[in-house]
This record gives sequence, C-alpha cells and structure tokens, in this order.
Amino acid sequence: MKQILVIHGPNLNLLGQRETGIYGQVTLPEIDAKIQALVKELGVGVECLQSNHEGEIVSAIHGAMGKAHGLLINPGAYTHTSVAIRDAVAGCGLPCVEVHLSNIHAREEFRHHSFIAPVAKGQITGFGPDSYLLGLRALASLS
Amino acid sequence: MKQILVIHGPNLNLLGQRETGIYGQVTLPEIDAKIQALVKELGVGVECLQSNHEGEIVSAIHGAMGKAHGLLINPGAYTHTSVAIRDAVAGCGLPCVEVHLSNIHAREEFRHHSFIAPVAKGQITGFGPDSYLLGLRALASLS
Amino acid sequence: MKQILVIHGPNLNLLGQRETGIYGQVTLPEIDAKIQALVKELGVGVECLQSNHEGEIVSAIHGAMGKAHGLLINPGAYTHTSVAIRDAVAGCGLPCVEVHLSNIHAREEFRHHSFIAPVAKGQITGFGPDSYLLGLRALASLS
Amino acid sequence: MKQILVIHGPNLNLLGQRETGIYGQVTLPEIDAKIQALVKELGVGVECLQSNHEGEIVSAIHGAMGKAHGLLINPGAYTHTSVAIRDAVAGCGLPCVEVHLSNIHAREEFRHHSFIAPVAKGQITGFGPDSYLLGLRALASLS
Amino acid sequence: MKQILVIHGPNLNLLGQRETGIYGQVTLPEIDAKIQALVKELGVGVECLQSNHEGEIVSAIHGAMGKAHGLLINPGAYTHTSVAIRDAVAGCGLPCVEVHLSNIHAREEFRHHSFIAPVAKGQITGFGPDSYLLGLRALASLS
Amino acid sequence: MKQILVIHGPNLNLLGQRETGIYGQVTLPEIDAKIQALVKELGVGVECLQSNHEGEIVSAIHGAMGKAHGLLINPGAYTHTSVAIRDAVAGCGLPCVEVHLSNIHAREEFRHHSFIAPVAKGQITGFGPDSYLLGLRALASLS
Amino acid sequence: MKQILVIHGPNLNLLGQRETGIYGQVTLPEIDAKIQALVKELGVGVECLQSNHEGEIVSAIHGAMGKAHGLLINPGAYTHTSVAIRDAVAGCGLPCVEVHLSNIHAREEFRHHSFIAPVAKGQITGFGPDSYLLGLRALASLS
Amino acid sequence: MKQILVIHGPNLNLLGQRETGIYGQVTLPEIDAKIQALVKELGVGVECLQSNHEGEIVSAIHGAMGKAHGLLINPGAYTHTSVAIRDAVAGCGLPCVEVHLSNIHAREEFRHHSFIAPVAKGQITGFGPDSYLLGLRALASLS
Amino acid sequence: MKQILVIHGPNLNLLGQRETGIYGQVTLPEIDAKIQALVKELGVGVECLQSNHEGEIVSAIHGAMGKAHGLLINPGAYTHTSVAIRDAVAGCGLPCVEVHLSNIHAREEFRHHSFIAPVAKGQITGFGPDSYLLGLRALASLS
Amino acid sequence: MKQILVIHGPNLNLLGQRETGIYGQVTLPEIDAKIQALVKELGVGVECLQSNHEGEIVSAIHGAMGKAHGLLINPGAYTHTSVAIRDAVAGCGLPCVEVHLSNIHAREEFRHHSFIAPVAKGQITGFGPDSYLLGLRALASLS
Amino acid sequence: MKQILVIHGPNLNLLGQRETGIYGQVTLPEIDAKIQALVKELGVGVECLQSNHEGEIVSAIHGAMGKAHGLLINPGAYTHTSVAIRDAVAGCGLPCVEVHLSNIHAREEFRHHSFIAPVAKGQITGFGPDSYLLGLRALASLS
Amino acid sequence: MKQILVIHGPNLNLLGQRETGIYGQVTLPEIDAKIQALVKELGVGVECLQSNHEGEIVSAIHGAMGKAHGLLINPGAYTHTSVAIRDAVAGCGLPCVEVHLSNIHAREEFRHHSFIAPVAKGQITGFGPDSYLLGLRALASLS
Repeated sequence: MKQILVIHGPNLNLLGQRETGIYGQVTLPEIDAKIQALVKELGVGVECLQSNHEGEIVSAIHGAMGKAHGLLINPGAYTHTSVAIRDAVAGCGLPCVEVHLSNIHAREEFRHHSFIAPVAKGQITGFGPDSYLLGLRALASLS
Repeated sequence: MKQILVIHGPNLNLLGQRETGIYGQVTLPEIDAKIQALVKELGVGVECLQSNHEGEIVSAIHGAMGKAHGLLINPGAYTHTSVAIRDAVAGCGLPCVEVHLSNIHAREEFRHHSFIAPVAKGQITGFGPDSYLLGLRALASLS
Repeated sequence: MKQILVIHGPNLNLLGQRETGIYGQVTLPEIDAKIQALVKELGVGVECLQSNHEGEIVSAIHGAMGKAHGLLINPGAYTHTSVAIRDAVAGCGLPCVEVHLSNIHAREEFRHHSFIAPVAKGQITGFGPDSYLLGLRALASLS
Repeated sequence: MKQILVIHGPNLNLLGQRETGIYGQVTLPEIDAKIQALVKELGVGVECLQSNHEGEIVSAIHGAMGKAHGLLINPGAYTHTSVAIRDAVAGCGLPCVEVHLSNIHAREEFRHHSFIAPVAKGQITGFGPDSYLLGLRALASLS
Repeated sequence: MKQILVIHGPNLNLLGQRETGIYGQVTLPEIDAKIQALVKELGVGVECLQSNHEGEIVSAIHGAMGKAHGLLINPGAYTHTSVAIRDAVAGCGLPCVEVHLSNIHAREEFRHHSFIAPVAKGQITGFGPDSYLLGLRALASLS
Repeated sequence: MKQILVIHGPNLNLLGQRETGIYGQVTLPEIDAKIQALVKELGVGVECLQSNHEGEIVSAIHGAMGKAHGLLINPGAYTHTSVAIRDAVAGCGLPCVEVHLSNIHAREEFRHHSFIAPVAKGQITGFGPDSYLLGLRALASLS
Repeated sequence: MKQILVIHGPNLNLLGQRETGIYGQVTLPEIDAKIQALVKELGVGVECLQSNHEGEIVSAIHGAMGKAHGLLINPGAYTHTSVAIRDAVAGCGLPCVEVHLSNIHAREEFRHHSFIAPVAKGQITGFGPDSYLLGLRALASLS
Repeated sequence: MKQILVIHGPNLNLLGQRETGIYGQVTLPEIDAKIQALVKELGVGVECLQSNHEGEIVSAIHGAMGKAHGLLINPGAYTHTSVAIRDAVAGCGLPCVEVHLSNIHAREEFRHHSFIAPVAKGQITGFGPDSYLLGLRALASLS
Repeated sequence: MKQILVIHGPNLNLLGQRETGIYGQVTLPEIDAKIQALVKELGVGVECLQSNHEGEIVSAIHGAMGKAHGLLINPGAYTHTSVAIRDAVAGCGLPCVEVHLSNIHAREEFRHHSFIAPVAKGQITGFGPDSYLLGLRALASLS
Repeated sequence: MKQILVIHGPNLNLLGQRETGIYGQVTLPEIDAKIQALVKELGVGVECLQSNHEGEIVSAIHGAMGKAHGLLINPGAYTHTSVAIRDAVAGCGLPCVEVHLSNIHAREEFRHHSFIAPVAKGQITGFGPDSYLLGLRALASLS
Repeated sequence: MKQILVIHGPNLNLLGQRETGIYGQVTLPEIDAKIQALVKELGVGVECLQSNHEGEIVSAIHGAMGKAHGLLINPGAYTHTSVAIRDAVAGCGLPCVEVHLSNIHAREEFRHHSFIAPVAKGQITGFGPDSYLLGLRALASLS
Repeated sequence: MKQILVIHGPNLNLLGQRETGIYGQVTLPEIDAKIQALVKELGVGVECLQSNHEGEIVSAIHGAMGKAHGLLINPGAYTHTSVAIRDAVAGCGLPCVEVHLSNIHAREEFRHHSFIAPVAKGQITGFGPDSYLLGLRALASLS
C-alpha cells in the first residue's frame, strides 16, 4: 500500500483559532480526519505531522526516504523562506505536492513566491481543507 | 444541476502534438472526455471551449453569466499577459479555478506570475490532465 | 462637422452589472446616450464602438483614418498591456484622448502604467461616465 | 454657492515665459481669467493661489477646510516629490482634482508617478489651459 | 519545394502611410512583391498573411504545421507582449526567423525585449524591407 | 536643566480632525499638554513647534544648536522625502529621537523608509501620542 | 494583573560578550533585571525567554495565548527573515511590541526591513536596553 | 558687466560648525569672501544668497531672470529631491553650474543622483570651497 | 568599389575548437573564405580582422574612417560590456551591421543586451556563419 | 593544539544518497574521515557536527567560544537565508571559513548570495569534499 | 615643480571629427595646447597621453607613481565600465581629478554612473575643453 | 607532469605597494616564489603571468590550450566586468580555479559578482597569498 507523509508547517496547529477570516474555522484535527476518510477511499496510507521547526520538517522529509512513497506538504510560512526544505524535498527523491489553504497569489507580495514549488510535482492553493484532499488525490494518481 | 464552463486557452488545441516533453501525450479531446467522465460522477454539467483569441475568451466568460455556476480555466499563455481576462473573471462574479498542465513555477521566470490567480478561487498546477479533474472537484465542492 | 470615434475596450459591455463599487451603476448604453447628448451641444458627430478584441480595436483605429478627426478611447485592460493599440494610435495620426471611469492611479500597481498615454494628447481618469464627457470636450476644443 | 480653491504649484508663475514648447504661450493670469469665465457659467466660486513653497500649499489646503467644497490643484513639480501635499489632500477631506498642462505620461520617467493622484478624485493631463477648465467642470458636477 | 509562411503582425497594413520616419515609405504590397521576386530566385514558395489579431496569428502558425517548412514573422507590437505567439512558434516545431523593419534595439526600452526571439532560429532587425529578404535567405539556407 | 526641542512636522496641526482612523482623536495641543506633564516628572524643559515647511524645520533644528540638548521629532511626511532635514539633524550634533503616531511599517510601501532614522539615535513608531512620551523618556535617559 | 511575555531572539544570549561596539556592555540577565524592576513599578507581570530557534519562538508565542496579555519581542536576526514568527504574532491575537537594541535603520540594508513590524502594534529601535523598558511601558499603557 | 547669482542651499549656513570631516572648516562668509575676491579678477558681479527653503530658492531663480546672466548653485540636499528647483533652472533659461563641496559620488547611494545636473551646463564636485571658484570660472568663460 | 571592414571580436579565433555545441564546427578562416566568395558576387571589397583587445578594435574602427564604407562587426563578448566600441562605432560615422553566430536572445540574460546595437544600422543573430553573409548583403544594399 | 569546529548544515547528512549529480557520491562519514586524516597532518584537532536546525547551529557556534580556535562551516541552504548564523559567526569572534561542495556561483541565482561570507575570513566553493580540506588548511595557516 | 599626468581615454583622439554636436569642434592637440598654456600660468608640469586600451591606461597610472603628483583623467567610455582603472587610481595613491567634455548626467542613463569618481578627489563635467582647464586648476591648488 | 598556467590580472603588479590594508604586504614576486615552492611539493609545473590587459589575458588563455592542464586565475578587476575572459575560460576547456586575495563578498556590492566563477571549477576568496596555494592544491588534486 502506497504510504504518504503529510506535513503541516508552522502555525497550522492554530487553525480554527487564528485569523479565521483567512484560514477558515476548521481545526487541524478535523483536517486530519478528512484526510483519513479520503485515504480509505483511495487505498493509501498516511502519516500526519505538524511542526513549527524548519529543521524538524527537513529531518521528517529525510525520515520518509525508504518508507513513504510521496509527500503532501503545506509548508506554511516556510514556503517563502526555506531553501533547506526545498533542498530536502529535492534530495529525498519522493514526489511532492505542495498545498495551501488560502490563495497565496491573492495575498501579500512576499507570499506569491514559493521556494518549494519548483521542486514539487505541483501546487494547489486556495481551497481551504479541500486543498489537502485534492493534493492527496493528485499524489495517489501519480503512477 | 450546477453548470461549469471549461475554457482552454491558446495553443491547447495542439496538445499531444506539441512539446510533449512539457505537456504530455494526451490530446485535448481526450482531456475533454476525462472531464465528461468525471462530470457524471460529480453530478454537474460542463461546456468545453478552446480559443486562441483573448477577446473570445473574455466574451465567453461574459456569456457564462446567468448560465454557468463556475469557471474552470486554463488560460495558457494569457495567464501571464492578460489583464482583460482577469477583469472578465473578476467582473462575471462566478467562482473560478485556474489550472495548468505543467508546473508553471518550475519553468521560465515570466511564467511564475499569473494575472488571473488573484481573482480566482484557487490555482492548481503541474498534474497534467489531472489538473483539470482536480479543478473540477474543487469547483463542484464549493458551496 | 468634426467626427469622433469613441472606443470602449474590453469588459466595458458589463458596466452596471460588474463590480459596481469600482465602476458605478451606469450602463454602457446610458454612457453612449450621455455622449450623444453632449455631442449635439458641441456640434460634433460621434460613432461608438465596444470590443473585447485587441485586434478589432487596432483595426477600428485604422478604419478611422480619413473618416474621423479624433479618437476618444477607454482602452480598459488593454491600457496596460497593448503595444499594438499604442502603435495604432501613433500610426493613425489622429488626436486621441484616453479616458478611464475609475482612478487607475489609486488601484493596483499594474494599472498605473498606460502604454497608450504617451502617444495620446492627454489622459482623464476617475470621473466615472463624466470622464467620457470631459474627454469629448477636450477633443472638441482641440484646434 | 459651491466654492473651489484653485492651487497653482511651483514655477507656474513663469507660464508663457518658460519652455513654451512644453507649456504653451498662455500666462497664469490668462488661465485665471479663463477659469473666472467658466466659473460664472457653472455657478460656482473660485479662489486662485500660486505658490512655490510646499509648506504654503499644505497650509492653503488646510485653510480650505470648512470654507471650500473642492480643490483644483496643479501641483507642478511637487506632484512627483511631495508626500506632505498628499497627506494634506487626504487629510482635508475635500474632493480634489489634479490637473497638468502637459501630458506628464509622455515626459521623463520620473514625471509619470504622482503622489497626489491616489488620494485625488481623478487626474486630467495634457490639455494645456483646458486641463483646468475640464477639472473645474469635473469638480462642479461631483454631487 | 520548400514552403514558407510569411506573417506580418499588427499595424503593418499601415506601412507607407504611418510614421514613415521610422518605418519608411514602402507599402506592404510592395514588400510582398519583393518577397515574391526573391522567392523565385531561391526556389521556395511563400504564402503571405497580415493580421492585427494575436489569436489569428497563433492559429495561422498552427495551420502551417504539416504544410510549411518555415516561418518568417514580423510580430510587430506582439513581439514584446505575446507569450501566446511564442508558445505557438515553439509548439509548431518549424524553424522560425523573426524580422523587424526598424532597429528595435535603438527605440523605446520596452521594444528591446522579444518574447519570440528565444524560440526563433534567429532575429534580423533594422534593414527596412531588406530585413524580410535577408530573413528569407536565412530560412532558405537552413538545411 | 536639559532642554528638548519638540518638532511636529507637516499636517500634524490637523490631528483630531484628520483621518482619525489612522491618527486617532487626540489634538496637537492635547499632545503638547501630555508632553508638558511628563516633562515635569522627568525634570527637563521642552519647547514645542509645528511647521508645514521643510525649510522652517531645517532652520529650527539649526536654532536649537547651543540652546537645546536633544531633539524629539515627528517629521511626518518629510520623513520619507527630506534629505535636508536629515542633514540638519546630522549637522546639529544633538541626539535626536524620531517618533511617529502610526505604525509606518504597516502602511504604504513608501512610508517604510525614513531618511531621518539613520542619523537619529532611534525610532519609535505606532503608539499614538504615547510615541512622543516614550521618545521623551528615551531622550531624557541618554547620558 | 496584566502578564507580558518577553522574547529575546537568537544570539541575544551573547550580549555583553559580543560586538559590544554595536550592542553595548550590558548582559541579558542585567536586561532582565531592569525589566523586573520596571515591571514592579508598572504593576504588570513578565516572563522572559531567550531562544536561538525560530520554531521555539513560534511555539512560545502560541503558548502565550490565553495566558499573557501582550508580547514584547526582540526578534534579533529573525526580524528580517521569519515569516513564521510574523504569522505567529498575527495569529495569536495579542498586542505585540517589537524592540531592538541597535538602530536597525542605521545598519546594513537587509536589516532595515522587518517582517514582524507590520503585524506589531509598534516598533522601538536604537536605545540599547532602554528599548525594552520603553516597549514595556508602551505595552502597559495599551488599554 | 556679467552678473551671477550664487545660491547656497539648505544647511550650508552651518559650514565650519557642522561635520567638518565631510565639509571642511571654512565658513560660508569665508566662501563668499573667496568668491568676491575671484569675481574682481574675472570682471563679473555676483550676488550671494543662502536659503533652507526649497520655495525660496525657486523664487530666487525666477527673480534672476532679466537681471543675472548665470546661476552658480550648490543645491545641497535639494540636489537629490527637488524637481521644483530643476524646473526653475530649466525654466529661467540662464546657464547654470552646479557645485558641491564634497564628492557626492563617494557618499551614500542616494547622493549620487542629481535632479539638477541634467538641466545644468555642468557639475563640479569634491573640491571644497574651490568647487565654487571653479564653477565661477566656468560660468565666466561661457560665451 | 565599396570597401567593408569585417571585425571578429574576442575568442572568435577559437571557432571550430571551442564550444561547438553553441558556435558550430566552422573555423574562422573558413568563415573568411565564405565572406570572400560572397564579396565577389556582391562587387565589394573586404578586409578581415580578429582581435581579442577592446582597444585594438576601437583603433581599427578609427582606422576605417576615410578608407572603408561600412563595418561588419561581431563584437563577441564586448557586445555586452564595451561602451568604448559603441562610441567608436557612433563616432566613425560609418554604417555598421552587428552580427552574432549564436542567437544571443536565447542564451544567458546578460547576453541579451548589446551596447553596440543602438548605434548600428541593424543586428543579425543566430544563423551561424550565415549571419556574416546576411550582414554583408545588408551592408552592400545600403545606399 | 588548535581546535576547529566543523559544522555541516542542513541536508548534508544525505550526501551520497541525494542528487549525486550535484553533490557527488561521497558520504558525510567519508568526508569526516578525510578531515580526520588531514587534521593529523596539520597538527590540529577537530570536532564535527551536522544539524538541520538553524537554531542548533547558532547555539553550536556560541558553544565554540572559549573552546575552539576556528570554525569551518558548510552552511548549506542556510547560507542564503540565515541572518542568525551570520550574527553568530560575527558575534563569536572566531575566524571562520565557509565551504561548499558545489560551485554555488554556477547554480540558481538565489544560491549566489551568502549571508555568511561577508563575516567569514574567506569562502571556498566547488571542489567537492576537497573544499573542506582546503578550508581546513586555510584555517590552520591563519596565525 | 608639481608634475601632473593627463590621460585622455578611448575615442578622444577623434575629437573635432566625431559627433561634434556632443563633443564640440576642438581637436585633442588643441586641448593639449590649452593645457600647456595654463600649465605655465600655474607653475606645474604636465605629460599628456591618449589611449584606447584599458590596460594601457592602467599601466600608465602605475607608471606615474613616484614621478607625478596628480592625475587628470578623462576616462571616456571606460568611466562607466572599468573597475581596473578604478583600482589603479585607488592603488596609485595620487590625487586624481576626473573630467568630461560633455555633461554625462544629461546623456544616456548608463553614462550617469562613474566607477572612477568614488576614488577620485572630484569630478568636473560638461564644460567642453574647459573641463580640463578647471580640473588642472583643481589639482594645482590641492595642497 | 601536469602544467598549470597562473594568471595575475590587472593591478596585481602593485601588490605590497598598494592598499596594503586590503591586499596585505606581500609582493607579487614573493607570491610567485611561494607558488614555485608548493609546486615542487605537488609535482606539477607552473608558468606565471601578470597582465593589465583584458585582451592579453584572453590570448594567454587561448595559448594554454594544448600546453597546460589547468588555469589558476586571479582576474582582479576583470572578475566583475569581463565576459571576454569568461568566454575564453569556457572555450579553452581547461579546468580553472578562480582565486582572490581579499574576501570579495565583504567588499563593495559590485565586487560580489564574478563573470568567471560560473565557468570555473570553483572559487577561493579571502586568504591573501594562501588563496593561490589553496587553488593550486585544488587544481592538482582534480583528476
């Protein structure tokens, strides 16, 4: 069974409490539950992880090598600042899908650029929790 | 039944013949067939349209007002140059999802910026024909 | 009698339906009616034309050569992207006044620059339908 | 009766003597006379003022609060450098129309940007003394 | 016999009437006649086409696939703004030579950049109608 | 007793009347009264001055040489445009604290840069009238 | 009693040992002692924390939600690079004051921009340890 | 006898007291005395003027029209910010020489650009008070 | 008989040995032979010169004054860095055609800009040795 | 005996597994073994450390104060993004040599800039594992 | 007797023949004669040198060390491109005055920047041959 | 025996006399002596060459083809301005190591960029004469 590592980046633990005008009312456990529900339908396995630490995310990606078959990552703020996560994604050799709850292209200028996207398979932005579900489908259907 | 207008921008009629290293082997009719198949599953209706003319795309978006409930658009090269299509999308008031076959963030610098994305609901890039299918799901689940 | 060609650019056919917070409630036929009313007072003739196609606007400007004595143009989104319309305006040799309903200098950065303005006689922005009427007066009083 | 404060910025006292290729042959008193003539037709009152001092222009705008109903300003060179006048315009709360004799968009790059325009109602450029008359009409017809 | 599609972009129909200081006195039919004369000498066939529409040019390039062996294009104003024509040129797989009557590198800054040149075989600028004839020779001698 | 010159830059005389959403409801005399109250507690003397003229502010800074022991300045709009005030501050040799009522770093891009800050002791922004009081304390405790 | 979380960012543990020409001779414990002394006078409580880890600072800010009433933060080097801390500050909903020992506007270009300042209440720079004390007063007097 | 207006811009009244490392020990009256001495040798007349006000400098330049035959100006800080003085220089039609005591090209980036130089006859920088004397010679020998 | 000076810039002596993927297999003597062959057909005379020295190229251009009737130059790397050669070309008053073997617009960003092109008659890029032959024809047909 | 702290930044633990086209086949333990071999020859001691955490690297640099006599650091991705590590290097006062396996100047634009290099003694890039050995020699021979 | 090396950069040997609208009618020998005449008055000696070679100019500056007491240089086109000449000027330790015949600040943008000026004593531009004479006076009066 | 060509660029002949604060006290012959000493140890041969002429350096690199097995180059000021040397290095096909005495990344902005580095094997900066010795070792150990 295909295994997927789902990584939630910094501040995503605050979902549902924080800036609900931008990020919506759903909490992170609720998103993980939606992911688990879809995973069953798609016949893949997932492990979910949230971290506020750039270094932990880098290490988690390394840890997925040889165990997972794909990465689903919402790098949060590190999207725009982390070359280290970019290098980890490129280095691990796993197909990676980058997702964002909000439409980053409609926000501040500095959120339009992603260091991760050029080494990812693709990017999905703006659909709230559905971004994760669409990303999971995308990963699942990659041969 | 929810109606969705699917717009394929310039040069997409060449799919399958053109630069298959970037865009893959699938042809536009094959993509439309995949869309029709999914549409049945999702219980929505679609109309598909391809045009190489910026003005025709603008007019088609106007024509969708009062008839369609959403736009699924791959603006192709006009993504990066057309304020007119941006204004049509913003002006029509319909939820819009922007899709791209290739990962535009991994290509030439001038393809990283989209005039459409800030007025779209979200953007999906990099999954080949699956970008359309994911976009359709995204539109279908918007309340 | 002096003849003036009035060109309404892309999306202006949506006036009154579209983003009324920015563009106001007046429709394009109502603007044309205001223009016709003023035209009588000023003793000039006008022909009005709306197009979403950059190429059609270029051709319409060509068509005015030898027939009209001035151009009143709201290039809409093409203001910011069309070198072709700029070249048509410069090439036709007719005095041209550029007008905008909204104050483009108070909107997104990319709307501040006009490719047309440097080859026009002048630019009038921000007065809603009155921008057209002021532009007509400006053209009429050019010797 | 609606009162309008007309402000002529720096160097405009030289009109008719200075760079007539750019600014034309008309003098400032002649422009003021044209304004007075139109004012009668429009049924409004005006006070005209010329200053080479940024600070005096700021103070004059303050002084218009509670007395005038609109500002017609040709900020001259301060258009491109004065945040202080911008703040005065925004702060006084009066509708303001910015006018220029020459087409600033057809001159040096640094003259394309106006600090005032984003806080004005609109901008009129390029029609020589008629820019003032058009601006006066624009102010007069603002409800 | 090698077939070449010659495309004249927007405003080139005005040649001889328009800005003769920049573009010279020769008309488009006269240029086409020069091309026809040289074609005989070179032993190739040509079809000539002028359009003011970006979309028509895109479609004409598509139409050349399987029929022509090369493109000779003066993209006019679209040189600087059209990613769609660039993609059509790259997508059609035909060798393409870009020509300009005027020396675009000696004109306004925005005319120095060509979206087409990087996907063309080469670029020839500044020789008036001779630019076409030189481009035709270049295409004819490509193996 | 340590003497401090307090300078209020352009438009600050409008406080309480102008854009109260940004600058608050307090008037300039009320701020001066708060300053006078704190001054007693701190055992320093102050003189307060408001001017809309860049040149007057320059001259006032010169006038403080040999009389005052520090400058507390809210340069208002001149913060972003005045090299002359910067040079006066650097030239007078007095310790200077720059204050702003609003958080200039959260406003328009052009308000983020201060010509004064690099030659000041420090900068305090965003605390409304308290910015002055904090700045006064900062100046008072400089040895 | 109002509780305030004081966060000292990376390298601030070196104070008094490191680059004393820029940062002065005072050590971090000495600064914390000054803070504790002022806290008594102001009638608020503080907790102080130093970390070299971006992720730890993000988590500490999260941890303050529901416990503290304000944040006093010297983000050190992360001021200029951390979108994650910016998002944590914005997300936690607590009033935040950003302080710096040195005058960052008088140092290298890359230190002039703060990612934190636009989501903070205000910024205080350049007063050495007094920056913290002024920031504490600012927080304490926020209603 | 040829008359020359010498204008000393903002802060130059501080010479000899202010930043002597950059500007030297000589005072403004001493510079004026050197100018008067050279003037006799050259057989021209001068009037010297110092002002901290941009508007006064503009007006002084206007006042020189019809009376003086040349301008010698050290615009000080206004060199880098004043379009108004530039327009006055261009408008008055008098030959103008711009001088600076310090070598502005060796100082901060923002001091490298002069708004005045492009409309002046020439620029002399870096020779302390001798810059004025060299500038006077330059003006005197202009036919 | 019209005389043309052909200048081959730096590194062109390496042709055929160096980076044949970019520059092809033909050597410089072979190119000169092709030029000599065409020259006979065109009825003009040529002198060919290769130099790696910017200063020698400048001097060679000077030397052509009064002797040659045109310049055919491949400035190689100096295209992008030499204002001195630009000034020599502009100063010598001879018509000049700039040629490049490779398509410089399809290579590194810094090769897109030519200091020479704006003072040349035209530019021909991308046709290998044929670029020279086309350039020669262009020069020969200039009246 | 001189002690040197060797720091391997993020993702370097993947060496030999990851992107071997860029970074080569050697593993990190193999590099450490090469370092240990050279260390004996040079008569210095080393401690080696790898971390994916920016904060840990900052703390490790602090920890070297008073214990090590030099730093040899390959900051990996943090080279381009970490002001915190820069400040730690500058603050610790130890001579530091920055090394890179690959030639960062030949890779993506964002890898050309190093925040660390300006505060390091020097930088060595492009020699694979030899970069470390050369850096060690450089550190060893610093007096 | 003070000795001064006068260096005329590339293309200055063409003076009087070349672009007389910009550079005037005077030839280089005539300028040298003017220099020799003034030199006698000032009681200094000069050697004059013209070269089109950057390297020769560098070597000439080296050669002046220990022999000349000052440099008077018109670097011509190398002003804008030569770091080598800048380093030679800075390295030789002689006071240097940079002169230009034309007003470089009024010409193309790329001529506004000088690599030499920041290491020269000062810069004199725009006075034709008088620029040399003024520069000579400036050098002569440097103590 | 492996042969290496060592090239010292412009102004390096001044070493030990020039700006010793930046470049140190060692002279070029002393550096060459150090190189000769190390060369014996490494079992390679070297030829050393200094030139102030860009063209001579280009030609010297050409001359090394077929004779030397590697290049060790300190391009001095040409590092930042010479595309010609870059092309020579790329064209000669020899492995090249770029060295600098000073840490160019810690100096003026324009010295941070090297045209040579992207086509070199690697770059070593900041170690004074040791930069050459380290570079020699690097070249010697390249297989």
